Amino acid sequence: MTKKITLGASQLMSVNFYSSAWTDRRNDTKSFATLAYWQEMARVLEAAHFDFLFFADVIGFPSDENGIPAAAIREAVQTPAHDPVTIVSGLAATVDKLNFVVTSSTTAERPFMLARRFGTLDHLTEGRIGWNIVNSDNQTALVKLLGLGEVTEHDTRYDRADEFVDAVTKLWEGSWEDDAVVFDQAGHTFADPEKVHSIAHHGRFFDVEGIFTVVPGPQRTPTLFQAGASSRGREFAARTAECVYMQEATVEAAQTTIRDVRERAARFGRRPDDIKILNGVSIVVADTEEEAASIRADLAAAPSTEALAMHFLGWTGINLLALDASKPLSQRSEFGHSTLDRYEDGPTVGEIIDGLRSSLGGLKITGTPESVAQQMIDMVEQTDLDGFLIEPNFGGPEEYRVFGEKVVPLLIERGFIDEQTEPTTLRQRLFGGSDGHINDRHRGAEFRVSQ
Amino acid sequence: MTKKITLGASQLMSVNFYSSAWTDRRNDTKSFATLAYWQEMARVLEAAHFDFLFFADVIGFPSDENGIPAAAIREAVQTPAHDPVTIVSGLAATVDKLNFVVTSSTTAERPFMLARRFGTLDHLTEGRIGWNIVNSDNQTALVKLLGLGEVTEHDTRYDRADEFVDAVTKLWEGSWEDDAVVFDQAGHTFADPEKVHSIAHHGRFFDVEGIFTVVPGPQRTPTLFQAGASSRGREFAARTAECVYMQEATVEAAQTTIRDVRERAARFGRRPDDIKILNGVSIVVADTEEEAASIRADLAAAPSTEALAMHFLGWTGINLLALDASKPLSQRSEFGHSTLDRYEDGPTVGEIIDGLRSSLGGLKITGTPESVAQQMIDMVEQTDLDGFLIEPNFGGPEEYRVFGEKVVPLLIERGFIDEQTEPTTLRQRLFGGSDGHINDRHRGAEFRVSQ
Repeated sequence: MTKKITLGASQLMSVNFYSSAWTDRRNDTKSFATLAYWQEMARVLEAAHFDFLFFADVIGFPSDENGIPAAAIREAVQTPAHDPVTIVSGLAATVDKLNFVVTSSTTAERPFMLARRFGTLDHLTEGRIGWNIVNSDNQTALVKLLGLGEVTEHDTRYDRADEFVDAVTKLWEGSWEDDAVVFDQAGHTFADPEKVHSIAHHGRFFDVEGIFTVVPGPQRTPTLFQAGASSRGREFAARTAECVYMQEATVEAAQTTIRDVRERAARFGRRPDDIKILNGVSIVVADTEEEAASIRADLAAAPSTEALAMHFLGWTGINLLALDASKPLSQRSEFGHSTLDRYEDGPTVGEIIDGLRSSLGGLKITGTPESVAQQMIDMVEQTDLDGFLIEPNFGGPEEYRVFGEKVVPLLIERGFIDEQTEPTTLRQRLFGGSDGHINDRHRGAEFRVSQ
Repeated sequence: MTKKITLGASQLMSVNFYSSAWTDRRNDTKSFATLAYWQEMARVLEAAHFDFLFFADVIGFPSDENGIPAAAIREAVQTPAHDPVTIVSGLAATVDKLNFVVTSSTTAERPFMLARRFGTLDHLTEGRIGWNIVNSDNQTALVKLLGLGEVTEHDTRYDRADEFVDAVTKLWEGSWEDDAVVFDQAGHTFADPEKVHSIAHHGRFFDVEGIFTVVPGPQRTPTLFQAGASSRGREFAARTAECVYMQEATVEAAQTTIRDVRERAARFGRRPDDIKILNGVSIVVADTEEEAASIRADLAAAPSTEALAMHFLGWTGINLLALDASKPLSQRSEFGHSTLDRYEDGPTVGEIIDGLRSSLGGLKITGTPESVAQQMIDMVEQTDLDGFLIEPNFGGPEEYRVFGEKVVPLLIERGFIDEQTEPTTLRQRLFGGSDGHINDRHRGAEFRVSQ
């Protein structure tokens, strides 16, 4: 049987995603703040048989000791970023098969409030919801916006995320038995009190005690996504994630990461196919190779040095614009951020900017529809990859429409994508199964009260 | 000119609102967790010319030292309660004139996160959003669910709410100038950095520093609602609220409260018509007086003693079911909750239950369509009231449909309700004006960067 390719669209509720491509005439993100903009996006993605629309998120903004540099505001780098959790029901009201994955931060949110929000959305979307678990970048700005005091060290943030996941899965899995709700009007019994249980989580970072105030939805636990690239991040993903979003730029790098994630998962008692591993990709498709190459060249030329430096600032806390471009950088230990792992030998500021310019967005696929489809298939077959998160180039629904019209029919024809005809939960869409619940090997299963 | 009556529908994302009326055959809240249920509600309310759909909220649940009593689960008292902020965009996608007011808690939320959420919703709804500011009931359960340590004393909760409102209005009003966004693609300038300002709030309860990451929506600050009944609560409302939700049961009580709120507001430099004062009401309408009276009698008989006691537990932390029903209660000073103000002379448990049974839901209007319309008009004319929040009886859209078909046409005919033909912001719908912004006398106006 041909391996199916999982397809997601990676978006941010902003005018911009990476770089400066929003300044291109092909961009149409000006109305990104409106519901109509995202309704159009959802319709395009559903028509193109995407499995889900994925919302990245940024709580803070690029910031150094003087706050946000002017360049970040001017070029809209990682800001504005509106709250994606608020738009899901609007899109669920618009399309009935597309799924939605929303990023929420274990640094910014409280476990009970997040569990309640996603629990409610599981009902409103009829199970079409996933949670992308992040600790958040832009920590310098974030801790000031939220009044958290100090930046938490990188690996400790993952310890907190681990505990956060325990707390929320206890609420989702451990409070209401499957048959607790009886809605017996004559007997004055909405739910059987014997089948609704208080959970108690008392840990290093969080205390959560009480019953869950949301009745179980189709999935109980939303489908869990994660995108950490560091060693600690992968360990977390291997234990927790049902979908891993990686951003490797080559077949070799993808092979290595996929093998590593699946091996780590096996040590937690999970099977290789318990995790869908998806790679971020920029796809440029045109009727001729020449036209596609020309668009790719435009994209490569788009990012200004200022915009690239602001992205780097958001990820690392280091403002390259304030440093001497010819001198080497060796500040890794001060920041402990995985993005700097690549630079531990001390590249210069100029080298970092050049590196960002060529690597931003990770994998790139460019060509005619036939060529793009074949490159996608090759990548999947050579790396054990499960699918792609297609990232914006210029921004707006139009580029997904083109991909959907030109490339998707070829992938359907070759059996790599199924046309979905019936709505289902996100988890069943990705993994099949007779219900929408986490499987028995997932870390959340130990907290179940209903078997 | 005839005074217009403002109309809201007060709802909770739950199977139940007050009492046990959900057990009646006329109830249709079984699918309260679904989007389709609320879409139908929104369509009914828009067709009936309601100004807004108001979502109350409960974070915790009735709780004593042993957690939630079985009776609260069985009778669905104040639980389940799903997260209403998640459904707004789904309803904004469904109807285009109805407005939405969502309760969010200054105890449970962080100012920046709440500001971001409502700022995003202001765009998605095109200005049709209000925030009902609460400190939250059910504090015993809430602090355990959120890991907050201790219950904050009643008046201190209002001090915190005051500071919370300062912090969020600084973000909404004080960060982006009106013309900051230029979207100049050729000039690589999304926004003019000179016109985007960091705000800094450093207070007793909150620290918030940085730019706001949401561009200004049609209202900037969502229309502000508040419902506190205590003296401190009214002082907060008089300074902060644009709409006050009170629950007085008689003309005399309403007159007193309305006068008090308007006098307090004047001391903050606000005008009487800067605040819409709305009263909660249970309306029963039928074709004959006899039929209406019969329905009212069914409603009065519906609440079980257990359900009433559980409501009281949620509001006060006192579990009447665990006390001797014949002995007087004098625990007011231990709890400091306004609901107990009425009982400071020490009523017995039985007297409290009886009192709740007759007073639950506050004002009641019962009769034929003509009679109901006239009673509403009388109440407005005798008390200087601005309108009503119509609360559920049995629950579900049907009772609003009946009210919309039988009573609203009479109110339109007499000039008390306008048929709205064009979408507008919530603030303009309630107060008119050339833009959707807070007026110059509101406490948030001092934080403005754009005039």
